[in-house]
Amino acid sequence: MGGDYGPAVVVPAALQALSDHENLELILVGDEAILKTMLGKLPATVNQRLSLRHASQQVEMDDLPSQALRYKKDSSMRITIDLVKQGLADACVSAGNTGALMAMARYVLKTLPGIDRPAIITALPTMRQGHTTHVLDLGANIEVTPEQLFQFAVMGTVLTQAVENLPNPKVGLLNIGQEEIKGNEKVKEAARLLAATPFINYAGFVEGDDIYKGTVDVVVCDGFVGNIALKTTEGVAKMISHYVKQSFNKNLFTRLAALISRPILISLREQIDPRRYNGASLLGLRGIVIKSHGSADVLSFTYAIKEAIIEVQKNVPSRISDQLANFLGEPSQRQLG
Amino acid sequence: MGGDYGPAVVVPAALQALSDHENLELILVGDEAILKTMLGKLPATVNQRLSLRHASQQVEMDDLPSQALRYKKDSSMRITIDLVKQGLADACVSAGNTGALMAMARYVLKTLPGIDRPAIITALPTMRQGHTTHVLDLGANIEVTPEQLFQFAVMGTVLTQAVENLPNPKVGLLNIGQEEIKGNEKVKEAARLLAATPFINYAGFVEGDDIYKGTVDVVVCDGFVGNIALKTTEGVAKMISHYVKQSFNKNLFTRLAALISRPILISLREQIDPRRYNGASLLGLRGIVIKSHGSADVLSFTYAIKEAIIEVQKNVPSRISDQLANFLGEPSQRQLG
Repeated sequence: MGGDYGPAVVVPAALQALSDHENLELILVGDEAILKTMLGKLPATVNQRLSLRHASQQVEMDDLPSQALRYKKDSSMRITIDLVKQGLADACVSAGNTGALMAMARYVLKTLPGIDRPAIITALPTMRQGHTTHVLDLGANIEVTPEQLFQFAVMGTVLTQAVENLPNPKVGLLNIGQEEIKGNEKVKEAARLLAATPFINYAGFVEGDDIYKGTVDVVVCDGFVGNIALKTTEGVAKMISHYVKQSFNKNLFTRLAALISRPILISLREQIDPRRYNGASLLGLRGIVIKSHGSADVLSFTYAIKEAIIEVQKNVPSRISDQLANFLGEPSQRQLG
Repeated sequence: MGGDYGPAVVVPAALQALSDHENLELILVGDEAILKTMLGKLPATVNQRLSLRHASQQVEMDDLPSQALRYKKDSSMRITIDLVKQGLADACVSAGNTGALMAMARYVLKTLPGIDRPAIITALPTMRQGHTTHVLDLGANIEVTPEQLFQFAVMGTVLTQAVENLPNPKVGLLNIGQEEIKGNEKVKEAARLLAATPFINYAGFVEGDDIYKGTVDVVVCDGFVGNIALKTTEGVAKMISHYVKQSFNKNLFTRLAALISRPILISLREQIDPRRYNGASLLGLRGIVIKSHGSADVLSFTYAIKEAIIEVQKNVPSRISDQLANFLGEPSQRQLG
């Protein structure tokens, strides 16, 4: 029920995902009357993999996380997370209020052993064709310790191994210079921790532009900095897109040029289409929770569902737990939740 | 002598600036033999407004600021700053090592009364045609107090008033959400200080994308976050430009389309050409110091010189000092240096 468009996006995206992935089963959680109307008559092949779960409430985009946690126990968001906790769903995908989603997921699912706080991670395109950079944290933790940055690096490594099939992803720490003397104490201490950890392929400090150069596979930062970097990216991309449209729409000649260049502009868009990168993960929880951008359209939301499918198939939370257990020298904790 | 290209960029840019601004006088500081060779024979009208000052040393891009300060007293950078201190130059423009420039400028020129530490500010393009956002700090201060963020807001307001001829620039504090509950304690406290100051047109929290939406005229943040936002911007812009070139260079058809679209792509580039925004100011000093991007080309460097000219004409350091004196209730300090 969340996001800017609610079921108007989620329902068609769910149907598309069911058609794309023949073993996928989906539970749509929300106002049953609305969902039923939107679904209409479905072919049996789809219908048998789709079920509904009624929720009498919904979390609004401006609900405070604490209030949502307290008063929205029958919301679509909460029920979906409860389904994951109960083992009735393998993952939760939501386009709703990020703060509320994080608060509910932490409260219901709990964090993995060795993880202080979950982090939000997403993939971003780079100049290296076919390569993506995974960046975390994107806003869940505005103040962090060096140990938490270390935990982010572990989680980012595991997720990237799983999702990108990279055996040994390179990890960079986001800083304002590549020299070892640069940066604040937290970053420097995290660098020492990472350099001393054999199972992390630590590549040193990276700068903001390295995210898009593809210098490394995982970029680690606190949630304040990560969120600013992500939003700045959105801003720059929108501005450039705005001036491209304006330039090609100036007069008859430019509109003709736009017509001729259309296939090129479309292929260009496909390379860096933000919709392809939709689906941030709330990492470090005893369960899989994927956050779609609130303004996601149908195509975009299907990518968030796809991200959930991959993480389920690769069993990302268990892998994080195992990797941390290795590091902490504790027995592996395969029993999550 | 600094920057990626040294005199090869600075000398032609200086000549261009002398031709663009008929009252401008320039002193070129560096290796006199190199400079003389590069200058060659000049017309009398240019020659009488151009002088040379020999420097036996130069600051390298990888010199530590502390080392440069101690051992590079006869460097082109240091001599230029000394000239400002001595009143023999109105401003210093350098494409050299930012850390060394900041360290020398602070040591030689000192900060203005009421300013703890200088900050780096630059203008960035926005979606609003003709509008720019001034962002500070971009990397001089990686840890700040709320009071320093407040000082940045004062400096940014004064600079934007002077450079953009805006009587009452809107100031935003960079944060990870617009709601008052969001952000860390420093940002929240700075928000309280700004909201209580009548001569600052405080507009509340802004997010990374607001820089390019043009929501406000001045964006205030600490140097760590500001540097990440700036470098991220560079990275995104370069990546998009890379894929644009690639898409238009794929085959005969796309190259033909590129030819037809060429005037459009050129006019587009002019709108958001980073060279037009070259010239960051080291604000809060008792003197004007402008930092050009190290990789600046000739056109780009002329913009840094232009920035210096405007700040001299508008007497930016005195204005900052006056504004702070107003706020602090102290007598105006027009005598700087």
